[in-house]
Amino acid sequence: MAQDVKNVSLSREEVLQISKEILELVRTPTDYALSVAESLVQAQEAGHASHGIIRLLEYADSVKRKVIDPSVRPTIFREEGATAVIDSHWGWGQIACKFAVKVAGEKAKEFGISIVSIQGCNHIGRLGEYIEMLAAENLISMMWCNADPSVAAYGGKDRLFGTNPWAAGIPSEDVPVVIDFATATSAEGKLRVARANGSSIPIGTVIDKEGRDSTDPQDFYDGGALLPFGGHKGYCMSLMIELLGGTLSGNHPSMNAGYSHGYGTVLVAIDPEKFFGGALFRAEISEATKKIRGATPVNPSQPVLVPGDVENIQRKKNSPMLQVSESIWQSIKEFKSTL
Amino acid sequence: MAQDVKNVSLSREEVLQISKEILELVRTPTDYALSVAESLVQAQEAGHASHGIIRLLEYADSVKRKVIDPSVRPTIFREEGATAVIDSHWGWGQIACKFAVKVAGEKAKEFGISIVSIQGCNHIGRLGEYIEMLAAENLISMMWCNADPSVAAYGGKDRLFGTNPWAAGIPSEDVPVVIDFATATSAEGKLRVARANGSSIPIGTVIDKEGRDSTDPQDFYDGGALLPFGGHKGYCMSLMIELLGGTLSGNHPSMNAGYSHGYGTVLVAIDPEKFFGGALFRAEISEATKKIRGATPVNPSQPVLVPGDVENIQRKKNSPMLQVSESIWQSIKEFKSTL
Repeated sequence: MAQDVKNVSLSREEVLQISKEILELVRTPTDYALSVAESLVQAQEAGHASHGIIRLLEYADSVKRKVIDPSVRPTIFREEGATAVIDSHWGWGQIACKFAVKVAGEKAKEFGISIVSIQGCNHIGRLGEYIEMLAAENLISMMWCNADPSVAAYGGKDRLFGTNPWAAGIPSEDVPVVIDFATATSAEGKLRVARANGSSIPIGTVIDKEGRDSTDPQDFYDGGALLPFGGHKGYCMSLMIELLGGTLSGNHPSMNAGYSHGYGTVLVAIDPEKFFGGALFRAEISEATKKIRGATPVNPSQPVLVPGDVENIQRKKNSPMLQVSESIWQSIKEFKSTL
Repeated sequence: MAQDVKNVSLSREEVLQISKEILELVRTPTDYALSVAESLVQAQEAGHASHGIIRLLEYADSVKRKVIDPSVRPTIFREEGATAVIDSHWGWGQIACKFAVKVAGEKAKEFGISIVSIQGCNHIGRLGEYIEMLAAENLISMMWCNADPSVAAYGGKDRLFGTNPWAAGIPSEDVPVVIDFATATSAEGKLRVARANGSSIPIGTVIDKEGRDSTDPQDFYDGGALLPFGGHKGYCMSLMIELLGGTLSGNHPSMNAGYSHGYGTVLVAIDPEKFFGGALFRAEISEATKKIRGATPVNPSQPVLVPGDVENIQRKKNSPMLQVSESIWQSIKEFKSTL
């Protein structure tokens, strides 16, 4: 489908500016508007259009519906030792995450490892962004969050888990390893696109309301469920994220009575300096990733990639001019004129 | 295949005793022999015969080949804040892991989170055991290790990663959630059994030396490789474990020049007390696991399980009398008579 999309080439500045203006038009203070806009543009540059500027429409709507408080400042709700709970007060998830990165980074450098969770947290965008911020400080990190239930347990029919992303960042002497994937087989957004295009989806992605495998995305919307990736092992990851994301953040696991909405976010940062030294660590990672990228590919035209390589390839394609789908760009400009 | 195995019913005491005696016969001090034997019997009781008393033969051989030093005591190599590196000095992996559990538990209670790695570490057995020890102290934990390369990268042919297990434990008001899986599609031991039985293996488990999908386990031994579970997402987990297990333990990622052998082990412990209190945490987990177990199953005769349930079912089957394959029991008795 991606091939059929007609793109427009835009300057980063123009895209950032209109994004910031839309956020300001829904009463986001300029510094927060710029920060959230920057996150969306970075996701766009990394090739994740689903987490890019298309979100402006949904975010503006969330502000109007008072789901997002655009000006509230995140605070530390509880802090002890190498742990902290941040309260985002249902403000911008991106602002809370960048605060969490700061707190987790400082604590990791002090204690060697830290864990920071976020309560009252709205959509946080692309997790890889925060992982990259910590990698830039030579810190290892892991991050995950739960979300509205849409994914069935292994062998079950009911929607119990969010699409529950897992992310991890590993600094090196060159580019960091950046892992960031949903533990569902597919993001819900991709089902929506397939439905709109009348496309079928691969077996193993969703089940219908009777629990039967289906290739029709509509079956998800008719009471079916997404499946976790990777069978019972992926189910374990989905469940772990749901339980730890939901409880440590105070957001509740999404099948529990206490859950209403939101993203129970947890961020762990680790300082390799405290083990065998940061320089040796980064040299080892670069040695390993060089070996991995140099492995014999099954298909000679498709070299083996390290997580994060795809995003770096996309960044090159989106520089100096950012490629944005013409229809998305049009809808954003029209949307802005309505505000 | 499991149905064809003829079992003998044995008392726990008898199995523990002979295991301990074999370990003592290869110069393991009595306290260590009892501890390692206990780990093997626990794996056997949990239904993981591959990590049970069958390992005695391999372990005794490793002692003879001076791979395992049976009497050396693990020490703390480096300790700072919430981190520690334990040196197992190529002693028993189980002894080092139980020491790591103690150190990680103490530090997690002090700092809220801790991370302990182990260098010079031999085979550690079933990771779930250590996870369960921490869960019994009401601590969350995550654990992983790298190992000899046998698994290809996603899209690659070469053996780069170990079978790299991932484990996580989550305490509740009742039984803990215990996650413990290899990030390879299959353990190497299962390929060995399939080859011995002349059985084929499912597509997606191994590739042959040309990188082609294969159902013949022999193709793995002829220069092929295991595949990571779950496509590119499982590959991310395998790679993360390899890089972090190898570097933080000082064991080196297994594709690096510094790697020789062993299990680069990392254990993270988290105290939920420091977030919203331990009692509320455990109540939330029990509420969630009850909902998960109560989910509508796709197949009415197969209820949805929570990770750890399979092991608890096996424990019931192995109590009061432990079920051991007759041929394994025979080979252990014969082996003992040769020592």
